[in-house]
Amino acid sequence: MAVVRLTIAYDGTPFAGWAAQPGLRTVQGELEAALAQIVRQPVSLTVGGRTDAGVHAWGQVASFELDGQPPDRLERRLNSVLPQAICVIEASAAPEEFDARCDARSRTYCYWVLSSPVRHPFEIGRALWWPRRLDRPALEQCAAALSGRHDFTAFTPTQTEHVRFEREVIQAEWRSHKLAEPFPGALLEFWIEADAFMRHMVRVLVGTMLEVAGGRRTLDDFEALLRGGSRERAGETAPSHGLYLAAIRY
Amino acid sequence: MAVVRLTIAYDGTPFAGWAAQPGLRTVQGELEAALAQIVRQPVSLTVGGRTDAGVHAWGQVASFELDGQPPDRLERRLNSVLPQAICVIEASAAPEEFDARCDARSRTYCYWVLSSPVRHPFEIGRALWWPRRLDRPALEQCAAALSGRHDFTAFTPTQTEHVRFEREVIQAEWRSHKLAEPFPGALLEFWIEADAFMRHMVRVLVGTMLEVAGGRRTLDDFEALLRGGSRERAGETAPSHGLYLAAIRY
Repeated sequence: MAVVRLTIAYDGTPFAGWAAQPGLRTVQGELEAALAQIVRQPVSLTVGGRTDAGVHAWGQVASFELDGQPPDRLERRLNSVLPQAICVIEASAAPEEFDARCDARSRTYCYWVLSSPVRHPFEIGRALWWPRRLDRPALEQCAAALSGRHDFTAFTPTQTEHVRFEREVIQAEWRSHKLAEPFPGALLEFWIEADAFMRHMVRVLVGTMLEVAGGRRTLDDFEALLRGGSRERAGETAPSHGLYLAAIRY
Repeated sequence: MAVVRLTIAYDGTPFAGWAAQPGLRTVQGELEAALAQIVRQPVSLTVGGRTDAGVHAWGQVASFELDGQPPDRLERRLNSVLPQAICVIEASAAPEEFDARCDARSRTYCYWVLSSPVRHPFEIGRALWWPRRLDRPALEQCAAALSGRHDFTAFTPTQTEHVRFEREVIQAEWRSHKLAEPFPGALLEFWIEADAFMRHMVRVLVGTMLEVAGGRRTLDDFEALLRGGSRERAGETAPSHGLYLAAIRY
């Protein structure tokens, strides 16, 4: 028996999320079908970060057990049968006890905000277009407040399967890239690394920070929410199409 | 009467090129329909660079004559009715004699080549994926050979409406950007500015340079083609989806 580790990128647009669901097109469903075709046995994937419908990934990690040894050039074979929106960047043999979910030490997500008075035809479905006022120092103050251990109860739906609501944020920051000529404005990237995330957590954080940066909420209020609170006290859930699972550390 | 100048970006994927054609979805057709709706008169656009089917633009420029003065915030009104794949970045009053085609002093195109062993789900339809060997110094030598006035007869289809085949290349270079983690490889950008371009010229240049960089053609051969020659002596036409009209100078 071998354990195989996959690093996977995908454009989440056409998928109902990572997790296989009967009758729906999902990333896990597409990958397990492609794997079964190539390794000629049923395969069950364990994943480092379950992504919701429409969420993208650059560095998703999944693992599976295989009877026998993985075929040569597995990534190339997989990519030849996978839809273009999914790409296996690397397939490698992992230690026998490797588990993509349990062994993950941290996950890093990135959220893209297109801060510009005009739409950008090449960022449709890739970034949240935000033509309204954004106070960048306020965004940076919010990110700085995120470092450390907090209670994120206010940042996940009330109906939840989570049992603990504290998460350790290892790093959080906003980065800004001026758009190339002739586009006005900037692409703002919110990077956050934490031990683990709850459902919608990054999207509600972004939605709430945008309210602070638009002057509709104070930094104090944002900081208070990090000590707990009910979901309706936090801001809107930013749309899934701006969110990327960037990396998983082991 | 007023003359209005538009700066336009578009994702060329869904369009049969710039030029209006009956029964086909074109960028000019979409823009003229949107303009007619907003300025309440028929509008005829003159364009700085006619792009072929599937070719993208960041900095296309078009102009039109208008009875009366242009409405306030014309770009915003246009963007609210245009399809998402087209965006008007700027609409401004131009001198009465301004003509987007005749007054253009140079056009700049950019061609994107994804040099990587694996596909990239976010570059589908945006860059030519090229997993084969590419000798970067050879690409740079080709670009260096392009500066100046040359006979580009070999780089445009034999069936042509062009009557002169010399063009002045003002600047040509390859730039390379390492892809962000975890993607292997680089995005190579070929930038070329010339007084004017013939049909397919950038795409045949790129296709021919890729043959030099793959070792299937010599630099001497490429340089000889710049002194004229028949179309079949040059390389393949690189696909339209890697090409961007970047800027037009006046």
